[in-house]
Amino acid sequence: MVQEVRHLYDPEWPRRIRICEVGLRDGLQNEKRLFSLEEKLLLLNKVVDSGVKIIEIGSFVNPKAVPAMAQTEELCRLMPKLAGVEYRALVANLKGVERAYSAGIAKVKLTVSASEAHCRSNLNKTPAEIIDGFTSCAAYAAEHNMNVSGAISTAFGCPFEGRVKLEQVDRVVRDFLRLGITELSLSDTTGMANPRQVYELGKYMTTAFPSVRWVMHFHNTRGMALANIIAGIQAGITTFDGAFAGLGGCPFAPGASGNVATEDVVHMLHEMGIATGIDLEGAMSTARLAQEMAGHTTDSFVLKAGRCEDLAK
Amino acid sequence: MVQEVRHLYDPEWPRRIRICEVGLRDGLQNEKRLFSLEEKLLLLNKVVDSGVKIIEIGSFVNPKAVPAMAQTEELCRLMPKLAGVEYRALVANLKGVERAYSAGIAKVKLTVSASEAHCRSNLNKTPAEIIDGFTSCAAYAAEHNMNVSGAISTAFGCPFEGRVKLEQVDRVVRDFLRLGITELSLSDTTGMANPRQVYELGKYMTTAFPSVRWVMHFHNTRGMALANIIAGIQAGITTFDGAFAGLGGCPFAPGASGNVATEDVVHMLHEMGIATGIDLEGAMSTARLAQEMAGHTTDSFVLKAGRCEDLAK
Repeated sequence: MVQEVRHLYDPEWPRRIRICEVGLRDGLQNEKRLFSLEEKLLLLNKVVDSGVKIIEIGSFVNPKAVPAMAQTEELCRLMPKLAGVEYRALVANLKGVERAYSAGIAKVKLTVSASEAHCRSNLNKTPAEIIDGFTSCAAYAAEHNMNVSGAISTAFGCPFEGRVKLEQVDRVVRDFLRLGITELSLSDTTGMANPRQVYELGKYMTTAFPSVRWVMHFHNTRGMALANIIAGIQAGITTFDGAFAGLGGCPFAPGASGNVATEDVVHMLHEMGIATGIDLEGAMSTARLAQEMAGHTTDSFVLKAGRCEDLAK
Repeated sequence: MVQEVRHLYDPEWPRRIRICEVGLRDGLQNEKRLFSLEEKLLLLNKVVDSGVKIIEIGSFVNPKAVPAMAQTEELCRLMPKLAGVEYRALVANLKGVERAYSAGIAKVKLTVSASEAHCRSNLNKTPAEIIDGFTSCAAYAAEHNMNVSGAISTAFGCPFEGRVKLEQVDRVVRDFLRLGITELSLSDTTGMANPRQVYELGKYMTTAFPSVRWVMHFHNTRGMALANIIAGIQAGITTFDGAFAGLGGCPFAPGASGNVATEDVVHMLHEMGIATGIDLEGAMSTARLAQEMAGHTTDSFVLKAGRCEDLAK
C-alpha cells in the first residue's frame, strides 16, 4: 500500500537533463590566475572524457579586456573533435563571430542583459539597441551555417535595478526571436533568483515560446542554485549550465560562491534517478584538477563531502 | 497578457513557514570549542529578538558524553520567558524528561533512527525497541502536561545502509503514534536526501498521517538543503529546522557543511514572498556573532554574499 501511495504522488520528472560545461569560459574568466593553454587543454579533455556533450570553450572578445580568454583560438585548434560533442563560444560582435568561424566553432553565444540599467552601465545602450547590433552577427552565422544561441543575463535580478520583471525578459526574448535566434538562455549571473521566480519565469517562457530551446544558468551566490534548477525542471526546462568545481564568481559579491558546480548538479540529478550522460567520478576528477590549478578551495559540495553512495559502501 | 499567464502558473505557495532554531543544540554540539554560558545566553537572546518562536535550547543527556550541552539547566534558568516562544530540549530517556521538567521546559524531543544498522551501531537495538524504551518518557510527559516531539533521524539516507526506504520510516512513524506522539520530524542528519525523495516521503506522510504536525530537518552537506526545503513545502510541510550560521557538521563528512543556515532559509523564503516572522537582519546578526564565537567561517551564503536586496540599494 505504501508503494501505491508513493507512486501516486511521484511527479513526472524528466528522464534526462542536459548539462553544458561553462567552466572553461565563465569559470576561468573569473579566476585571478591565468591558466596556461596546456592546463586548459587538460581540463577540456577531462570534460569530454566525462561525457559532457555541450561545452562552452571560451570567448572571442578583445584579449586585452579579457586576458583569460586570449588563447581561445589555440584551444579550438587542439580541442578533441568528436561526433556528438557541441562546442560553443561567447562573442560580442561580428568580429567575434568571424573569429569563431575561422577557429572551427559552429555555435556562438550572444549575450544581452534584461536590465536596462545594466546595459546602460556596460555599453550605454538599451537591451533592444544591443540586440539590434547583433543583426550582422546573425546574418553572418546564417550565411556560414553556424548556430547562434542568445543569453539573457540578469534575467531574474540586477545589481542596479533589483528584481527584474517578466515583461523585461519577455521583450528581450521577442527581440532575439526577430533575429531568428531560437536557443535562449536565462541567466542568473548575480545569484539573485529564487525558486518561485524561476518556476514562474520558466513556466511562462516554455508556455509562451514552446519552440525555443531553453537553457538556464545559475550561480550559487546565495545558495539557491540547486533549488533553482529543480524549479526550472518543474517548469519544463531540460538544459542547464554548470562549471567544474563551482568556479566563477561575481564582481558584486566578492568571495561568494560562483557558478553552480557541475559535479553537484550531476550528483543531485543522479540521486534523483535523472540521467545526465555524465560520469560523476569523471566530473569530480575534473573539478579536483581545476581546484588544484586555481590554487584555492571552491564551493563544490561533493568534493568536500563525497557522494551519498560513498558513505554506504 | 503576460501578467495573466504568470498568474495562471503560480503554484500555491504557503503564505507562512515556521522555522525552528536548532543552533544552540545541533549547532553548538558539533563545535570543537565549548561555548560559555554567557555566550549561549547572548546567542539565545538574539535568536528571540529576531522573532524566532520555536527554539531547541539544548539537550538533557549525559554531560560527560556531550560536554557542550552540560549547561542546559543553567541556560533554561536564564532564558527569556515570553508568550508565544516555545522551547524544546532533546532527551534520550526518562531521566532527561525529568530534568527538562525541572528546568521548566515544556517540550522534549525524542530521537530514533529509521535505519536499523544506525540504531544497532549506536545502541545495539532495533528502532522499535528504542521507541519502546520511550514509553515511560511519554507517560511522564503526559502526567506532567509536557509536549513530546519525535524525531526520525536518517529518514532519507544512512551512512551504513545507504538509501532508507519509505517503509522503514513508515514503521517508525506508526511506533511513535502508538505512544501518542503526534509531532514528528523527518531528519536528514547526514545530508543524503534529494528533492525527489523529500517530495515523495513528505507527500506520503502528509497524506497518510494528516493529523501529525510534520517538521523537516536538513543538513547542507551536499548542497541540497534549500532544494529539499522547497520539495518539502511542495509536499505540504510547513515547519523546518535551521541553525544560525549553518553550524553543526556530521562525523561522516568532516569539513563539510552543517545544518542549513537559518538566515539562508529566511532569505530564500522572504525572496519568494513567504513570511517567516523572523527579522532577516537580526538572524544575520546572530549568525555573525555565532561565527565569531566559533572562531571559523561557516557555510552561510547570505553572510558571505549579502542579501539580494542589498545589491539594488
